[in-house]
Amino acid sequence: MNASQPSRRGRPGHSQSSVVAVAVETFNRHGYEATSMGMLADALGVSKSAIYHHVPSKLEILRLALDDALSALETAADDAEAAPPSAASVADLMRATVRVLIEKQSEVRLLLRLRGNSDVEREAIERRRAVDRRTAAVIEAAQAAGELRGDLEPRELARLMFGTVNSVVEWHRPGGRQSSEEVAETVVSLLMDGARQRA
Amino acid sequence: MNASQPSRRGRPGHSQSSVVAVAVETFNRHGYEATSMGMLADALGVSKSAIYHHVPSKLEILRLALDDALSALETAADDAEAAPPSAASVADLMRATVRVLIEKQSEVRLLLRLRGNSDVEREAIERRRAVDRRTAAVIEAAQAAGELRGDLEPRELARLMFGTVNSVVEWHRPGGRQSSEEVAETVVSLLMDGARQRA
Repeated sequence: MNASQPSRRGRPGHSQSSVVAVAVETFNRHGYEATSMGMLADALGVSKSAIYHHVPSKLEILRLALDDALSALETAADDAEAAPPSAASVADLMRATVRVLIEKQSEVRLLLRLRGNSDVEREAIERRRAVDRRTAAVIEAAQAAGELRGDLEPRELARLMFGTVNSVVEWHRPGGRQSSEEVAETVVSLLMDGARQRA
Repeated sequence: MNASQPSRRGRPGHSQSSVVAVAVETFNRHGYEATSMGMLADALGVSKSAIYHHVPSKLEILRLALDDALSALETAADDAEAAPPSAASVADLMRATVRVLIEKQSEVRLLLRLRGNSDVEREAIERRRAVDRRTAAVIEAAQAAGELRGDLEPRELARLMFGTVNSVVEWHRPGGRQSSEEVAETVVSLLMDGARQRA
């Protein structure tokens, strides 16, 4: 048998990122609170002490996973802010967000279900809210430029668009028959042009 | 002081429905698994044994709350199936669903976060999936009738529309400045006609 990829700390079988990836799945299945380090050890097929070679605590695993998702969402918002206010820049932001949601689906699912039970959760919720506010501003700027309908309240429009985009996390199956690009195009097309058949 | 409304079992201060309502808030705050009957007693300001005068178990509270939300969603689906396939019947179903989500917001939030850790949860998830399938069929019939765009895959369109509608549960504040009718109209308008400004 080939040896698995070694971690940075020289332990065979798992790296920090593979420990985090398995932990995120376990958190999503049982809830973060209900998941013990013993359950993580079982899921990883290692001892509890082996986990501590990769991460100092369950909370630090959560922090790493949330930071991974949030950093990608923040980059999408950076790009949208750098573009001129337009329907196209809003569409690009939606597309980029769908891509993050599909590529980091488990981490985003964890993020969307946080309850704010620790400083780590509260900080992540605050970063997510900041992304929401920046998205609302991008949408509002596109409205002000006359490219999006002005009869929908900007914050509400932003929340509904984000709601549509975020729902992808709930139903998209990893490895499904649609690529992240195809899903992104459907989302953007529905949000921009609506479901009604036009004459 | 006036006595509070007595329950059907003669206990002052709480009815079965008020016990369930407070329990649902507590489940949403801490998670169902992490909520003990002792925590519910604290939230209700009564002893644990007083709770058992109203409900036999924590699981039965969960079942009652989920049944309340699901019955309302099923009624909306019944109405949509009784109407002729059209964009209007899809819009009506979305409107009715938004109303349920706002009027039974806490129960629906609980429903949307279930993980399937018990038979009660698994049955509720199955009922929710049945509503999703019926919604997809209503949308597909409206597409077949030429009233909704045919270039979006029916199941995916249904999931995205439901995603938009369901997101209301996450951000709508009870007692906010918008009525459930106003929120429903915004959701329907965005989903049917899209966000783009038309010439």
